[in-house]
Amino acid sequence: MRFDVLTLFPEIISAYCDVSIMKRAQDSEVFTLNTINPRDFTIDKHKKVDDTPYGGGAGMVLMPQPFIDAYESVEKTENSITVMLSPQGEPLTEKLVLSLAKYNQIIMLCGHYEGFDERIRDIIKPKEISIGDFVLTGGELPALCLIDAVSRKIEGTLGKIESAQEDSFSNGLLEYPQYTKPRNYRGYEVPEVLLNGNHKEINKFRLEQQIERTKLKRPDLYEIYLKNTNK
Amino acid sequence: MRFDVLTLFPEIISAYCDVSIMKRAQDSEVFTLNTINPRDFTIDKHKKVDDTPYGGGAGMVLMPQPFIDAYESVEKTENSITVMLSPQGEPLTEKLVLSLAKYNQIIMLCGHYEGFDERIRDIIKPKEISIGDFVLTGGELPALCLIDAVSRKIEGTLGKIESAQEDSFSNGLLEYPQYTKPRNYRGYEVPEVLLNGNHKEINKFRLEQQIERTKLKRPDLYEIYLKNTNK
Repeated sequence: MRFDVLTLFPEIISAYCDVSIMKRAQDSEVFTLNTINPRDFTIDKHKKVDDTPYGGGAGMVLMPQPFIDAYESVEKTENSITVMLSPQGEPLTEKLVLSLAKYNQIIMLCGHYEGFDERIRDIIKPKEISIGDFVLTGGELPALCLIDAVSRKIEGTLGKIESAQEDSFSNGLLEYPQYTKPRNYRGYEVPEVLLNGNHKEINKFRLEQQIERTKLKRPDLYEIYLKNTNK
Repeated sequence: MRFDVLTLFPEIISAYCDVSIMKRAQDSEVFTLNTINPRDFTIDKHKKVDDTPYGGGAGMVLMPQPFIDAYESVEKTENSITVMLSPQGEPLTEKLVLSLAKYNQIIMLCGHYEGFDERIRDIIKPKEISIGDFVLTGGELPALCLIDAVSRKIEGTLGKIESAQEDSFSNGLLEYPQYTKPRNYRGYEVPEVLLNGNHKEINKFRLEQQIERTKLKRPDLYEIYLKNTNK
């Protein structure tokens, strides 16, 4: 997998991807990461990337030329997709993450300030993806969420592939409660069933906990789970 | 506002908050940011923060002692809230962001690997918040989303306060299309209405565009908008 990120703040992208699991994944060539700064493609001497909006209003709008020239400089591999991180996009879900993990290259466009000149959408025609109904300063955090979530699905990123399969949402339910040492912490005990080595009972306990939690905390997901299991 | 972030990767948090609008907001004391590393609170010589799960399964679980001791070391101000970033939480929305912006202090617990020992939840009783139905390596990106979104609501972060008021979702609709210079880019023209200086017409055009886009791209939000406007 190759990630190309167009951003005015490449240091945000590299700072995250150069630590922990993301660093290990890059070191073992699970994915490669490139950042492209549209500011390097400006044609005026002040390296201006934004200007005031036509029709008035607060804030600045990203001009088409630096972004589109930067985009056109990216080498496209076979089986590539271009994504714009935007509150108008399709909400990111585990299902969308899985479908993105099938590409060889994901090119990401990160906005900043007031957003993109509409002609950037008209010309590049990216798939728009949103990470949620809240407003951020830029597309960098959503891009990092996408890189992190997608790279988890690629073999080699996680120590064991089961780790991702046991994650939240992998069976449409929230995760079961986890316990590690010590057995007793400030009077709180690890549930007995987890200590007796009976894997059938352990699996039963965990599934019950998953169902109970999902029902309580996310009735919307529980409804979908019910529909799918009654098929 | 004071943000305290408990994380095993404090460098991720500082890397993001030390650039762009977040840096300016810190410099002008709109918010202060502290990171606390539970690894500094371990009591064994290997500075171990996680261990294998009781009952078996892949991955590691964060042990209660380092996290709880780290948490208890944080000075709590008046009107403080503790948040755990977790896929099990209440989904983050602009409405939740606004309610969080009213606190004086937000303490955030970031997990990593397989998640928290359940007793961390039992003892700290945090409010759990999720940024979406997808799985990430850790709680750092969700914590940064929360810091970014909340700090936008605090006066002083943005150049002009209107900027946040004109954002997506502020009236329950997606944003209208934005245009800046040049008027003609590769044959794509800025809509005439934005050039004539008639603000009544401009507002009408923008609202129509907002409604049309929301109807097309996010019918769920459009339904809610309809209900609220027909009240």
